[in-house]
Amino acid sequence: MPATAAPATFSSLRPAPAGRAVEILDQTRLPFAKAWIPLAHRDDAAHAIAAMQTRGAPLIGAVAAFGLALAMAEDASDANLAASTALLAATRPTAVNLAWALARLEALLRPLPPAARAEAAWVEAWAIAHEDAAQCAAIGAHGAARLLGEISEIGAPAGNPIGTRTLAQAGIGTATPRPLNIMTHCNAGWLATVDHGTALAPIYRLHADGVPVHVWVSETRPRNQGLLTAWELAERGVPHTLIADNAAGLLMMQGRVDAVIVGADRIAANGDVANKVGTYLKALAAGAHGVPFFVAAPVSTLDFACPAGSAIPIEERAGDELRQVPGRDDADRPATVRQLPAERPVANPAFDVTPAALVTALITERGTCPASGVGLAALYPERAGALPR
Amino acid sequence: MPATAAPATFSSLRPAPAGRAVEILDQTRLPFAKAWIPLAHRDDAAHAIAAMQTRGAPLIGAVAAFGLALAMAEDASDANLAASTALLAATRPTAVNLAWALARLEALLRPLPPAARAEAAWVEAWAIAHEDAAQCAAIGAHGAARLLGEISEIGAPAGNPIGTRTLAQAGIGTATPRPLNIMTHCNAGWLATVDHGTALAPIYRLHADGVPVHVWVSETRPRNQGLLTAWELAERGVPHTLIADNAAGLLMMQGRVDAVIVGADRIAANGDVANKVGTYLKALAAGAHGVPFFVAAPVSTLDFACPAGSAIPIEERAGDELRQVPGRDDADRPATVRQLPAERPVANPAFDVTPAALVTALITERGTCPASGVGLAALYPERAGALPR
Repeated sequence: MPATAAPATFSSLRPAPAGRAVEILDQTRLPFAKAWIPLAHRDDAAHAIAAMQTRGAPLIGAVAAFGLALAMAEDASDANLAASTALLAATRPTAVNLAWALARLEALLRPLPPAARAEAAWVEAWAIAHEDAAQCAAIGAHGAARLLGEISEIGAPAGNPIGTRTLAQAGIGTATPRPLNIMTHCNAGWLATVDHGTALAPIYRLHADGVPVHVWVSETRPRNQGLLTAWELAERGVPHTLIADNAAGLLMMQGRVDAVIVGADRIAANGDVANKVGTYLKALAAGAHGVPFFVAAPVSTLDFACPAGSAIPIEERAGDELRQVPGRDDADRPATVRQLPAERPVANPAFDVTPAALVTALITERGTCPASGVGLAALYPERAGALPR
Repeated sequence: MPATAAPATFSSLRPAPAGRAVEILDQTRLPFAKAWIPLAHRDDAAHAIAAMQTRGAPLIGAVAAFGLALAMAEDASDANLAASTALLAATRPTAVNLAWALARLEALLRPLPPAARAEAAWVEAWAIAHEDAAQCAAIGAHGAARLLGEISEIGAPAGNPIGTRTLAQAGIGTATPRPLNIMTHCNAGWLATVDHGTALAPIYRLHADGVPVHVWVSETRPRNQGLLTAWELAERGVPHTLIADNAAGLLMMQGRVDAVIVGADRIAANGDVANKVGTYLKALAAGAHGVPFFVAAPVSTLDFACPAGSAIPIEERAGDELRQVPGRDDADRPATVRQLPAERPVANPAFDVTPAALVTALITERGTCPASGVGLAALYPERAGALPR
């Protein structure tokens, strides 16, 4: 067994205590309860992805790979390989990592005799998990360096039509410098990846390196993934403040945001970014106030075959995600309240597209680059032929 | 009795069945239950305002006036006039309309003999209610005309960096024209005024005139006033769809929004607009996509003494507004869930400021004007001396 295939315990995914199975943190119960769910069959994995028990573009890629490995353990035939790949691919439409992980496994497994497929799939699924954790650690290092670079620019006029950030407001040259204020959206931390996170990886790295950071955590309606971000930041002791999504523009106008950093569900070849709905509004506000806007993602999120954001399908999810809100009742038991009767009309697009022009830089496991075909070609020269120039 | 003093039944306020009293819709129970509360004593009115059983700046001004009229019916002495005015003014000390309505009544009543005060106060309170309804109706007429003017522009390229609205997508020249799609934020309808509303008045007017309209209703976290907007639109049969605040940018990028119209809490002399937090993000998105962005408000919302939005204080409200979410439980009883433990850090600014440059036009009871000192001077020449040029 290759070294990369050795099972390990990660923050959001770990080997089951016995047998060839894995366990995932049940994110539908977080931040109210921390519970692990065993995935012992293909359909466990498919359900976990579709029901968002596991979520986050990189993590669902890894979980889908385990799902295909579990399918091969049950029936390694060509027919089941094709059927299981299709079934798992259909669980979520927008994130490209899912399709990427399944294609990688299928390409490995199809030439193999069925008897060899289960073992190979299991090894490869763990390899994907290890790679994701390593890539996220690299994103953390590159992103932390870039964010530190931004500190030298804090205090520059922010193009703010109402107020203007001043050197003193930014804490530069004062007796009590304030932390680097970073805004994020949705959850792109260790809960959304096998470990470390994408958008949050640089924040954890800065925190570990002793740089004072403070995170503005956007609630991220309607699924409230900001509560997951607040929870995982609290678990690691990183200072943060929860805000309504609506407050992002005001905070930037007030000069209280030094940088925005988000993850991505898919990045087109021209640098357009599909991410959790609401990302685009933050990018517009960042652009209006000269606040750098970064997108952090591993190579598996880059869709070199997708020419532009307009070609990315936007998932429409169930209206009850907006009509109902989960939490804890007065007795601290899990409870859900209904905000709106079931028959009332709701639109619930899960993602939006941020044009490349609003993205200051992409941060990947290889470094940072402009959000453009030329920028991506510099980081991924082996893919340059597929990229617009 | 002057014609304007005749009691009438309005949407949010009506005469009680018997005696000199009024009834208000209990907004703390909406949208889950529709219940009228009788206000038969001064303290009923004071409690209704303080507990937000009635809300919306124009409406609480009228309710405060009725509170003072009820006080005069019980004790019309100078001492009670002063004490009741002070007590009612303290219920929501930041609300401009409240102080304005009480000052108007007190100036009328103080010169009168006590025996004449109860009758005069009752007549004047109804006059204030009638005037508010009439101003909102005028806003509806002016706004409807302006929105109809926008229809001729639907289908123009929207400056959309990803997609472009086309004539066909807009329904122009096709066999099945689609409705005018209007986005709003917070609740600025008949629930927030004596009748008609501010931002929603033009929508009700178009609907009454047979123009097909559809309203994108933004949830408006953290207080979820969008649920009130959805409820009142449903009561009047106006087609609408609830969305997460986060979806506004995507819908504009997709060309599915023809205009945005919001109310205001204060409009500065230069046209900057303070309104419910999140308004600014919608204005930025509208600006990026060439979608007209209108602000509707009566003259009482115009602060000629405030030079610019940067001078408007931003109210910070309790963090539990974000940590807790009210609704109905499985048995359809009122219930609240907690999203975040009480000790976790939250920032909850209630308003933001939209720069005048992002406002296509202001709509008031006198008509429409550019959001600028020059524009306001054209509509309010008697105040022009106070305005920046």
